[in-house]
Formats: sequence, structure tokens, C-alpha cells
Amino acid sequence: MTQPAKPAPEFLNALESDPRTMGWMDGAPPPEAKRVRFADGSMMAFPQNRWANSHYRELVPTKVVARGHGPVHPLPRAERQDLDAVRFFPIGVAQEMTWGQSLLANYTDGIVVLHRGQIVFERYAGALDADTPHIAFSVTKSFIGTIAECLVHEGALDDAATVAHYVPELAGSAFGDATVREVMDMTTGLQYSEVYTDPQAEIWSHARAGGLIARPPGYQGPDNFYEFLQTVEKQGAHGAHFSYKTVNTDALGWIIRRVTGLSLAQNLSQRIWSRLGAEHDAYITVDTAGTEFAGGGLNTTLRDLARFGEMMRNGGRAMGQQVVPQAVVDGICKGADPAKFVSAGYHTLPGWSYRSMWWVSHNPHGAYMARGIHGQAIYIDPVAEMVIARYGSHHIAGNLGIDPHSLPAYHAMALHLMQSA
Amino acid sequence: MTQPAKPAPEFLNALESDPRTMGWMDGAPPPEAKRVRFADGSMMAFPQNRWANSHYRELVPTKVVARGHGPVHPLPRAERQDLDAVRFFPIGVAQEMTWGQSLLANYTDGIVVLHRGQIVFERYAGALDADTPHIAFSVTKSFIGTIAECLVHEGALDDAATVAHYVPELAGSAFGDATVREVMDMTTGLQYSEVYTDPQAEIWSHARAGGLIARPPGYQGPDNFYEFLQTVEKQGAHGAHFSYKTVNTDALGWIIRRVTGLSLAQNLSQRIWSRLGAEHDAYITVDTAGTEFAGGGLNTTLRDLARFGEMMRNGGRAMGQQVVPQAVVDGICKGADPAKFVSAGYHTLPGWSYRSMWWVSHNPHGAYMARGIHGQAIYIDPVAEMVIARYGSHHIAGNLGIDPHSLPAYHAMALHLMQSA
Repeated sequence: MTQPAKPAPEFLNALESDPRTMGWMDGAPPPEAKRVRFADGSMMAFPQNRWANSHYRELVPTKVVARGHGPVHPLPRAERQDLDAVRFFPIGVAQEMTWGQSLLANYTDGIVVLHRGQIVFERYAGALDADTPHIAFSVTKSFIGTIAECLVHEGALDDAATVAHYVPELAGSAFGDATVREVMDMTTGLQYSEVYTDPQAEIWSHARAGGLIARPPGYQGPDNFYEFLQTVEKQGAHGAHFSYKTVNTDALGWIIRRVTGLSLAQNLSQRIWSRLGAEHDAYITVDTAGTEFAGGGLNTTLRDLARFGEMMRNGGRAMGQQVVPQAVVDGICKGADPAKFVSAGYHTLPGWSYRSMWWVSHNPHGAYMARGIHGQAIYIDPVAEMVIARYGSHHIAGNLGIDPHSLPAYHAMALHLMQSA
Repeated sequence: MTQPAKPAPEFLNALESDPRTMGWMDGAPPPEAKRVRFADGSMMAFPQNRWANSHYRELVPTKVVARGHGPVHPLPRAERQDLDAVRFFPIGVAQEMTWGQSLLANYTDGIVVLHRGQIVFERYAGALDADTPHIAFSVTKSFIGTIAECLVHEGALDDAATVAHYVPELAGSAFGDATVREVMDMTTGLQYSEVYTDPQAEIWSHARAGGLIARPPGYQGPDNFYEFLQTVEKQGAHGAHFSYKTVNTDALGWIIRRVTGLSLAQNLSQRIWSRLGAEHDAYITVDTAGTEFAGGGLNTTLRDLARFGEMMRNGGRAMGQQVVPQAVVDGICKGADPAKFVSAGYHTLPGWSYRSMWWVSHNPHGAYMARGIHGQAIYIDPVAEMVIARYGSHHIAGNLGIDPHSLPAYHAMALHLMQSA
């Protein structure tokens, strides 16, 4: 085991970086130094992200994901006082930590734990509260992957067909000869770096094209997601191994739009959000062509995120109906081939696999996850009958610095709930 | 009477400009010629505005105006088939027109008529439906004026004090020595043109500052509403006469934020939206400092707009409680001095006045209105117990081209409902 990433000394801790304490966007007008903006990139920077992640719609254009007019799925409250003290060993550390401590260590904005569908723990911090949507970042991908699996199940989408079959515009790109399944499982061979600390990484070109970060004066690059997708070049062979590249999800989003004739927001609303008993509308960021950011643009309230996880845990059922086919849930839970996952080098995820935009642990509990940068997560433990939804604003984007204080905490919580129920 | 403005021949009529027919933003991706964008100004241009006015959040940053968790105020349905045939003489025209024809003549996106609190007529066209918010443009002002009146009523705001008393940053601008009342009633003397057809008019500088229209490369002007407000210079004396200048409402917004310590979105939600029994959250556009566009940024569903009008018609009561004090409603209904209104030259509004950001007809029915460019309106007729809420996307911004086919139609509808109830 390697040592976990630790906050560099220059970073404020969770309490010091509390956005209420820091006063981001407070005042009429907020002082210049207290503004969080799209144009200067501060919305993506720590500690401003602790405010921005709960205020995305105030910074960029967004499309509603409507909950519709149905009743709210009640989440009975059965909160327990013993859970803050649940203890675990962080990955690579010989000293125990408590659940309560882990929330601070991971700059948690909000976390809810459902056990057998009841809320046993719920806490908010910083700029988040129960009624405010928070950006889910790459947790979005698991929604998109689930929709794609539904389409495959319905026979509307052939996962053995090539991307070019559905989107001829991508024939000349790296995606052209990839199968839909390779895109869904991210086993495509693409020249695309997702190293957030590298300013030259293609993820930043992708973000500029999609209007997620500001463009330099005189910018001549791709104007939207579709234009960017067509520029992606091949690197290596498709199907060889898993390699996490956000652009796959945007390609999958294009396929879904073509197959359904509906926007992703409409797909999300009609297939999932309106059938979960969500408390609130969700929303998703859009580029200048109105295209949703499939790779990471969804914003939801925390409880609604938990409702999505709970629906998956219940074999795709919610509000007395089958929202997602049982076979789709089973396929996701089964995961992909862990051997194809090894070379990706996730030392915090030994033995895991990636299937249909979900992360599958293959642990004895069959836990699987949706994961997003800065600590967004859905953790579903079928054996423990537990779902955790978590939003955060860690100063590090990648989850490798967050996993050491979250994955063992989630498993310890699962064991504790099983033993003490 | 002068001749009403008629659509220039190059403009498409309401059916020809139907955004569904035109295919704006249809497709994955929409063809270049079918995109409606912020950057190129197409969102404000006809006929693209017929799509954009129902999709503002997809084009610019917005802040939620939350409806909260309370029940929805039911609007019983009592729709009648006789109303399309209601006849009236358009202003300045010797030939009658029907209500049904007027909806097309005014490029109506949606209209609802409440009689004694029941929906007697409701129709949608183009990109609007019952669950989609539409931009209210300057109808927003009447919400802000009502909030200001509530603060005056509570003693939190002194309408005889100067603007500089509340906002010292405006001391050096034209607003400095204006009273709050002069701002509320728009009798300030400001060098500020609101002639939409003049590209040099200050309304466009205002819009660029507030992020409502794109800025040219190398733009060095005001970066937000607050910066713009401080640049407004005096022209003439305050208090002399009414002169419609949107910038007054943004100054009033600043005052409200200072007095309450809350954003306008919070004020709108806490004071009005959460107490109306609204069906949907509303939202409001924001500038780069997170400041709401008080002068015209609110977006609501049509029925929720009607609920606001109905609350006013009921003396400020809704959902069994007093939302706005009766005295505030009475003060608004009473209007201001029509003599101060004359010089503004609104030939379609003879004898009217402007009070607290509401337009007051002083007709025998005591009708009063909230009005926004391109045909947004709330029309409240206390005698007829009627409220009309209307959203539209006329090819002309100013209401002088719309009034001839709307004001007499509203009054004819009022008489018809009174006679046939």
C-alpha cells in the first residue's frame, strides 16, 4: 500500500475553507476578492470550488432535468447517533480514523446514508443544503451509462455496432471503428489525457469546447462538444484495456441523442428523474449548441442522488414501478473484466472493473460506485442494503487522494449497519 | 388615434415563425443555421426569440427563485369555448378583431385568463408549455417594486430618503440625490435612452455590463450591473415627470439588497414565490458578480405569473395568508399622478400613470399592469375580477406595437366575462 495523498500545507482544511466563513459572493456587491467567476477560472479552483460546486447554474448555462408532477419518494428518517464514531483504517495508514473525521478529511459538502431505504445519517456543510443542487461531475456518467444499457436492453441500441454506424460524423475520429460497448466500458484507444494537473491535457481542450472553462482571447478551437469529439485521434487499439477518458461519455451522449431523438435532459427526465420520486428538478450544463455535458454536467440535490442509488439497489424499482430493467442493474453489478482494469493503475481500486460507466468493486458485498472528481460519489452495497450519496469539494480533483478516507469508511459503515441493525 | 404599428413585410407571422416549425435547436447537433446563441445576439433577434424566450437558462447563468415545499395553489379549471370569439376594435382601427385573432397578431407564446380565480382560458404556442418558464422581461420590475413597497410599509425603507443614504457607492451618480420614491416611480432625471432600435442607447451598455448581450472583443466597459449604475449621469431634474428607464429598477434592486441583506432571488422567494402556491421554481438571470437583473431577468411559468396577479387582485392574499399588505396593493392600484406621465408620450396609454414599477390605467375598472418588452404582461381588472397573464415573442420589442391588439382585447374580455358570468 502506498501512502495516501495528503493535503499540501498551503491548502486550507475543511473548516478553514468553509465557504460561509470565507464569504464567497457575500455582499451587494461582493468585494472583488470574494467573487467566484467563470471567466477567471476561479469556479474550478480550491477553495472557491466549495462555493461554486453548489452554484453551477449561476455561473454557466444549464438545462432543466424535470422531476415532473408525481409524488415525492419518501425517505423515512431513522437517524442514529452512533455512526459518527464508526472507525476504520484509511488506506495505507496504520492509525484508525472515525467516520466523523473522514467527512472533514474529504471536504464533504454533504453526505447521506440510506440503510434499507431509511436515512440513518445525513449531514451538510459549506454552501450545500438539502434543497440545493450540487454538481455531480463524473457521477453524471453513470446516469448516461444506465440509459445506454436500457436502450441496449430494449433493442434500440446494438452495443456490438460501431459508433460510426450511429454517428457518421464520428467516422473519421478515433471513435469511428470503436464499438458502442467499448465506449460504454471505456476500453477505447484514444489520444486523450485526463491528467487534471497537466494544462496541456486534452480534458482541458474538451472543457473549453464545451464552455466549461473560459477560452483565451482569439480562441479558434472547437466551439462545442460535437466539434471536439470529431477531433479525437486514436492511440492504441480499441478493446484492449480500460482507460478512463471522459470524452467517451460525450460520444455516448451523441449516440443516445441519435437513437432516441431526444436530448439527454429529456432522456434523463423521462427515463429516470420523473420516475424516482425526486424532490427537486435536477439540471445539466450545456455548451453553445445546447448540448449537455454527458461526461460531468449533472447537478442534483443530495437526497435525489441517493434516491437514484436506492432505485439501483432495489433492482431498478422505485415508486412501485420498474424504472430500470432488473437485467440492466444485474449487468452493471456484474461488472467487466478486472484484468482489463489493472493497467489503468488505480492503486486504491484493486480488483475493480468499469462497466457501463459504473465502477464495480467485486468485493464480497458486490459494492459498486458512481464517482466524480473532487469527491462526488454514489456507493451501493447490496449485501449491507446500504446506499451512500456524497458531494464534496476536495482541493484535489482526482479521487486517488479521496479514496483512502472514503472507501474504507463506506465499507466500515456497511459492516456496522449490518451488525447493529 | 394614430395607426398601430404593423409588422414589416419581412417579418414572419405568428404561425410562420412558430419555433417548432422553424426547428430552432433541433437535431444532434442542430445545424449551424438553426442554432440560437448568446454570443451572436441571435437569442434577442426575431424570430429566434420565439425559442429563446422559453429557454433563457440554457443561454445565460441564472439563479433559482425557490417555490419552497408548500402546497400548490389550485387554479380550478372552468374553460369556456366562447372566448375566442370575443370581439374588439384594435386601437386606431375601424375593423373589429377577435380575441383568437389577437393572439396571433401579438405573437403570443402563452396566455391564461383567470376569472374569479378560475382558469377560463389557457393557451400555449411555440416553444412554451405549462411547465416551462418564459422570460418576463420588465414584468420583473413589478415584482421588485412590490417588494420595495413592502419594505416601505414595514418601515425598513424610507421612500423619502435619498438613494445615497442606502447606497453610498451611488452618491456620485445621477441616483445620488434622487429619492427612493423617485426611483420607484421612475421620475428620476437620467441620461439613459431605452430606445431599443438605437444601438447607441444606454440600455445596450447596461445589457453588456449585466451579461445580457455579448461584449465585443477587448471590451473595457462596466463588468456588472453595479459598475454600470455608478456611471449613470443626470439629465434634467428628479421628480419632474415619469420617464421609463430600466436602470431605475437595478438601482432599486441594489437598495433592496442593502436594506434586507438578502439577494433579490432570496427576497423574491421568501416574500412572494414561496407564499403564492407556485407550481414551479422561477429563476432570474445574473451578471458576473451574481447580481440579479432586477430590470428584466425573471423567468416563470405562465400559471405562476397568473398566481402573482391573482394574489394582487385579492388584496395581497393567497393560500389563506396575507402575502403582500393590503395597503401596499391599495397604494399600487391608486397609481401616481397621470399628469407626470403625459410627457412620456405613450399614445396607447392615455391617462395612465406609473407607480412602484406598475402601470396603472385609471380606467373605470381600475385596471393595472405589469409590462415587458415583446409582449409580456400581467393585466389585473379588479372590477371584472379578472387577471390575464401573457407571454409573447413579438418581433418588436416595445409594447406600442402590441398594445393596439392587446389592451382593448383585455378590456373586451373583462366586459364579456362580467356580462356572461
